[in-house]
Amino acid sequence: MEKYYYSKVDLATLCQRPAIRQVNVSAIMEAVRKGGDEAVRGLTKRYDLTEIKDLQVTRRPKISAKLLKALETAASNIEKFHKAQIRQRLTVGTMPGVTCFRESRPIERVGLYIPGGTAPLPSTVLMLGIPAKLAGCKEIVLVTPPAVDDSILAAAEIVGLKQIFQIGGAQAIAALAYGTESVPKVDKICGPGNQYVTAAKMQAQSEGCAIDMPAGPSEVMVIADEQARPDFVAADLLSQAEHGPDSQVVLVCSNPDPILQELEKQLKLLPRQEIAKQALEKSFTLITENLDQAIAFANQYAPEHLILNTANADQLVPQIINAGSVFLGPYSCESAGDYASGTNHTLPTYGYAKAYSGVSIDTFTKQITFQKITRQGAKNIGPTVATIAQAENLIAHKRAMTIRYE
Amino acid sequence: MEKYYYSKVDLATLCQRPAIRQVNVSAIMEAVRKGGDEAVRGLTKRYDLTEIKDLQVTRRPKISAKLLKALETAASNIEKFHKAQIRQRLTVGTMPGVTCFRESRPIERVGLYIPGGTAPLPSTVLMLGIPAKLAGCKEIVLVTPPAVDDSILAAAEIVGLKQIFQIGGAQAIAALAYGTESVPKVDKICGPGNQYVTAAKMQAQSEGCAIDMPAGPSEVMVIADEQARPDFVAADLLSQAEHGPDSQVVLVCSNPDPILQELEKQLKLLPRQEIAKQALEKSFTLITENLDQAIAFANQYAPEHLILNTANADQLVPQIINAGSVFLGPYSCESAGDYASGTNHTLPTYGYAKAYSGVSIDTFTKQITFQKITRQGAKNIGPTVATIAQAENLIAHKRAMTIRYE
Repeated sequence: MEKYYYSKVDLATLCQRPAIRQVNVSAIMEAVRKGGDEAVRGLTKRYDLTEIKDLQVTRRPKISAKLLKALETAASNIEKFHKAQIRQRLTVGTMPGVTCFRESRPIERVGLYIPGGTAPLPSTVLMLGIPAKLAGCKEIVLVTPPAVDDSILAAAEIVGLKQIFQIGGAQAIAALAYGTESVPKVDKICGPGNQYVTAAKMQAQSEGCAIDMPAGPSEVMVIADEQARPDFVAADLLSQAEHGPDSQVVLVCSNPDPILQELEKQLKLLPRQEIAKQALEKSFTLITENLDQAIAFANQYAPEHLILNTANADQLVPQIINAGSVFLGPYSCESAGDYASGTNHTLPTYGYAKAYSGVSIDTFTKQITFQKITRQGAKNIGPTVATIAQAENLIAHKRAMTIRYE
Repeated sequence: MEKYYYSKVDLATLCQRPAIRQVNVSAIMEAVRKGGDEAVRGLTKRYDLTEIKDLQVTRRPKISAKLLKALETAASNIEKFHKAQIRQRLTVGTMPGVTCFRESRPIERVGLYIPGGTAPLPSTVLMLGIPAKLAGCKEIVLVTPPAVDDSILAAAEIVGLKQIFQIGGAQAIAALAYGTESVPKVDKICGPGNQYVTAAKMQAQSEGCAIDMPAGPSEVMVIADEQARPDFVAADLLSQAEHGPDSQVVLVCSNPDPILQELEKQLKLLPRQEIAKQALEKSFTLITENLDQAIAFANQYAPEHLILNTANADQLVPQIINAGSVFLGPYSCESAGDYASGTNHTLPTYGYAKAYSGVSIDTFTKQITFQKITRQGAKNIGPTVATIAQAENLIAHKRAMTIRYE
């Protein structure tokens, strides 16, 4: 990990993420749009090297009682935190006779993408499925590359998801965006994925299908003070580094050497050490003189995950402006949030935390506004409306109001 | 307006909006990215036929006392409804020793686009500026084509916006997305616009700058029952039709003839009757047998504005699933919401109401999640985290947890 000093480095340059390799998936998208299920089967054979007859998966999973219990405990925590996010009707009388209110409605049809690849991710099924279910989405369609691991199916069963398709990559996103004979077309597509999935989501978005957020490689920033145990911090850095060679790992502290020594030691114990090593080669340490500098850099970088392994972590909360999810104090490791604390692990990376939020109940709902104006209300608000309409030269707008009160 | 019968028409076809002509603005975007202020000046000369020296507008506006009062009244209502949307900290203890919470933060730098064209739109300044200000955005940059009307400047003054630039079209969006010598780069761009503005926003979005929502022509659906006064309904249809030749106007009722006769009569009185006529030619009436059919069609169409001019409008609220903003009962005209009731008029059109919400405080904020785990909490949640991490083959994730409780 390269070392930089806060007062000697261009911080803006340090905040730049590595460029994401752009891929073009429009041919895949077009093939699925035109060819439906058959095209999906052909693409799955080509890219996943798998022949699938039934796109839908209906088998019952078998997993250990221990894993089932762990998934249920995680699901229960995630449900508690996301249930509290459900919004109630909000009503405001703005003028006598003029009442405005807002109500939440589920997005009716949503698609959830669960990545396959080097590890099955049942936790992502919980993180997307639970808020979608709590939101009341009528149709929740899960897609994930073949062969589908039993842990994925078990997580889907815990959430109560019925429509599961063994399709991955850009072809899965295309199937959700356009619909096929077996896969229902959806209004919004959520979930993480590789660059092909991301490119397909971006194309679907530009064609009118909503998505959760733009994506980039996963990342963590750890801010550590003198009370932080080097072995804890090193373990957190490595848990991010093992995700993939493009993971971003950032350490911000005054005295990095004990942590970096610990890092070398722990790295050797990891089965995925080759991946972690590649990620660490592209990562960096920023040496700061005080916590103010550290927090200022965090806000400029806008990390997906921010661990505040400091004595006064709670007191720093009001200063955190740009981050996806924040872990407070020495015992709040990122992996707790990745799986089970209750917060969502689908979060904005790549600096997108400046403008985007992680997945929540909001992701699966929209807010509709309503207004009720009484006859007397029309008299009260009418002249205001008529005057502004006149100023905007919109005379039919004016007449629609004046006809009601004059 | 073409007439269709609910039971005799393909409703899905009727829900399809006219195709939006695609325009390519990448050359304009690139010119501004490379050329900054000078490029903006050149493009403004070419497209707005205006030579501008200072991009920023600092003059004080002069408007009538009557218009000022109307804008202030509208601003007060809009502020009341949007202030109520500010979210408080949400805290949930998910397990003993595990606390999750969520806090809202302003998006720090936002750009607001206010269209010019055939009419100045001071109301849009209020609709975007007030929630941005209430959200606490640090930098709020308003762009609008030259020459900037005094009513726009007056609305900006009421809201307290200081950074106003006389730039329109794709070059304005490019200036916000990339920044120039005088225009600050922003994290999110909001506001309505023509197809060039829309194309530029979509490109900015694909490059990582957030936007409020995709856009399409404005639209209204009126559901009228037998109590509805034909002159009220006709006035509402015309207030939408006068927006532009591509406005969508949909009437849903059992007995349209008295309304359509009234429409012909009122149309003749309008200064913008040529525009309204063109819009009406592409619009339609759906003849339904009952309110259930009408509501079902509304949800399938997902109109930007939905007027329920019916006796029991309040009771229909729970059945409305897809709409931008809804107007309840005979006295709630769309123009009241366009200007002054308190709801926002920047709303999802073109069927996007199925997955998107209108502009609100949410547009200008993001939600950050936090978690605090105590030493005992790590013991409580640890085995769950370790078990799932093991199932996902992420051993560094597991170790970051076990090191804290074993």
